[in-house]
Amino acid sequence: MVLQGNAIVAQSGGPSAVINNSVCGVVQTWLQEAPFGKMYAGISGIKGILEGNIIDMGAQRPETIAGLRYTPGAGIFSCRYKVGPEDQKKLVEILKQHNIRYFFYNGGNDSMDTAHKTWLAAQEAGWEMQVVGVPKTIDNDLPFTDHTPGFGSAAKYIATCVRETGIDLESVSTKNKVTILEAMGRNAGWLTAAAALSKRYENEAPHLIYLPEVPFDKQRFLADVNQVYKDLGYCYVVVSEGIRDEKGEYCFAAGSLDAFGHAQLSGVGAALKDLVEAELGIKARCNTLGTCQRSAMHFASKTDADEAYAVGQQAVRAALAGKNGIMITLERLADDPYQCVCGEVPLEKVANVEKTVPLEWITPERNYVTEDFIRYCRPLVNGEVEIPMVNGLPDYVRLDLSLGRVK
Amino acid sequence: MVLQGNAIVAQSGGPSAVINNSVCGVVQTWLQEAPFGKMYAGISGIKGILEGNIIDMGAQRPETIAGLRYTPGAGIFSCRYKVGPEDQKKLVEILKQHNIRYFFYNGGNDSMDTAHKTWLAAQEAGWEMQVVGVPKTIDNDLPFTDHTPGFGSAAKYIATCVRETGIDLESVSTKNKVTILEAMGRNAGWLTAAAALSKRYENEAPHLIYLPEVPFDKQRFLADVNQVYKDLGYCYVVVSEGIRDEKGEYCFAAGSLDAFGHAQLSGVGAALKDLVEAELGIKARCNTLGTCQRSAMHFASKTDADEAYAVGQQAVRAALAGKNGIMITLERLADDPYQCVCGEVPLEKVANVEKTVPLEWITPERNYVTEDFIRYCRPLVNGEVEIPMVNGLPDYVRLDLSLGRVK
Repeated sequence: MVLQGNAIVAQSGGPSAVINNSVCGVVQTWLQEAPFGKMYAGISGIKGILEGNIIDMGAQRPETIAGLRYTPGAGIFSCRYKVGPEDQKKLVEILKQHNIRYFFYNGGNDSMDTAHKTWLAAQEAGWEMQVVGVPKTIDNDLPFTDHTPGFGSAAKYIATCVRETGIDLESVSTKNKVTILEAMGRNAGWLTAAAALSKRYENEAPHLIYLPEVPFDKQRFLADVNQVYKDLGYCYVVVSEGIRDEKGEYCFAAGSLDAFGHAQLSGVGAALKDLVEAELGIKARCNTLGTCQRSAMHFASKTDADEAYAVGQQAVRAALAGKNGIMITLERLADDPYQCVCGEVPLEKVANVEKTVPLEWITPERNYVTEDFIRYCRPLVNGEVEIPMVNGLPDYVRLDLSLGRVK
Repeated sequence: MVLQGNAIVAQSGGPSAVINNSVCGVVQTWLQEAPFGKMYAGISGIKGILEGNIIDMGAQRPETIAGLRYTPGAGIFSCRYKVGPEDQKKLVEILKQHNIRYFFYNGGNDSMDTAHKTWLAAQEAGWEMQVVGVPKTIDNDLPFTDHTPGFGSAAKYIATCVRETGIDLESVSTKNKVTILEAMGRNAGWLTAAAALSKRYENEAPHLIYLPEVPFDKQRFLADVNQVYKDLGYCYVVVSEGIRDEKGEYCFAAGSLDAFGHAQLSGVGAALKDLVEAELGIKARCNTLGTCQRSAMHFASKTDADEAYAVGQQAVRAALAGKNGIMITLERLADDPYQCVCGEVPLEKVANVEKTVPLEWITPERNYVTEDFIRYCRPLVNGEVEIPMVNGLPDYVRLDLSLGRVK
């Protein structure tokens, strides 16, 4: 007997290019397969739900919901908010008030922790509700899943930018002969490593890749850059924003902490540029893509977008099949031709656990990744997403938050 | 009577996404329409020609030459090199040695100066040679042309990134509520201004745009940001790397000069991020796209790519028709539907002259651009270029420099 009641979906954490595919998958699948209940959206994640900022997705135009498949950013808005014990009680009251029996939370590690705590709080209050986590993160650091929706698109964008700016670097005989690209990824170097997809032949960019998984040594870095520069006359470096020294301290942390107590990082690329110029006397440039790398839907991976939709769809189907307290995962069956299906894992196992790049996928010199990583990463960037263009630019959609407001 | 002899093409300055379309236009048109002579390429611009680094483009595979139409960077390599009087003499000797009677130089302001000087040096030496400049610059600062090939693609990329990261900024309720995007453009704010194409409705990003054409006032900037932040809860700023104060001094120059004596700029975005955080207490982010904005062929404008090809093609046809000492220009006939044809201007008028954004296209508040600018810019970003994809990434071509080496 399927639990009767309404559902809610919300997004949390930093967006990815394809995060809205997951919401679209949840919403469209629910509207088609669960006619007994409403599909609500919490606007701005758990924080919005706590504030009663909830809309009925059934009131949106179907074209707008379909347009989420090609729209970056958090379509139903997102938050970074750590739920306290008082919040949990209030949250359950709100969920009861709206007869919400299905809770879909779309996010990364911290979000899965929030989903897990919400599940526990509902149980404690005796409110029967099925909670399913829908994975998302460009960082690819969720455990128990082969990879995470959002990673493939960010990887494709980073690798493309490195290929393009690598060609640019090589082709101009000018003073700037070192390019440093700073990639997102606080503790996990997946996205930084993905730059290696760019290299098609020896000496093509990137030449050096530094991940947060292994200690960063400034002297060794300078020696590496100097060697490549001597050999080729230029050098392309990709570095994670989260590189740390032997003591495990961030090399260039800005000092402040976010809501979850994580160090705010910035300026690693710029700091390394200065280091190269000061110590090696070679002019350098730094490309800091910032939020572009998590929102570049204009060149997203179709494989990634489709998987992001699939985990949303599967979240609803799993919940309707009685599954509870789980996160949907991706299970790879084969690399080539690539095959992947949805699986599941208990939320409590995922919450707050970070999956980093295996050390055996990092070269002994600690400045590049191995062929095994390439084999893993390559299928995830395949295909492009078709986007309606107006006046030469992608015409992304926008929900009308005045429709279907839930009181 | 058409002058008999060989031709040479070379590239100079920073590449654009579509600069190779122009070389392709020159080479393909020459090979089809001037069977009497070879089409050489100077590898690494004028510097390469001076060093005798010359190849016969007829020895390249036709598929590779055709592939230049979708390949970023400087396909025949580029330089930043100021030609001195001794160089000029040597240059003419080399041109004579290879019986070069047609000289096509593909670049921006400085390059047109080089082309002009080469023309004068050849005349002085009594060497009859036709010189035609082929315009290129993402900065769009060449005079006597409606716009410059390379600008439209960079504009499309910047506007797309601003739309995507603007949606990202708005959609996440987090501490970082100000995003600053730094755009290239030393003295001319065309590319920075192009970010305005991103805005489809009131309050969509960008909210503030600062160009180098008008003095930058830090206090006014802070007041502007604060006002938008108060109104919306977030603020998206696009700023030129070349903003200057009332005295005309760069606000955040790094101190060194390039080969042409231009100040090396960097860190404007990062400096403004620090300023916002220190003075307003609002957390900010900075996206510094760097060389990505001049090499993003993966999302280039088809209009721009086609025009870049057309100016190359026209350069050859004009030369074969006896035109000399000119740069090919683009003349707009209509905005909507957009129509544009090739024209020409004497090189001496173009050399070292910079065209900046007209002051009447900047709002009285000096923090945005007008509808007239939008009307001018919009048609230039239309359409996308088809690029062969391999393993999910653009498969750009590469000349084989071992083929057709000229001794």
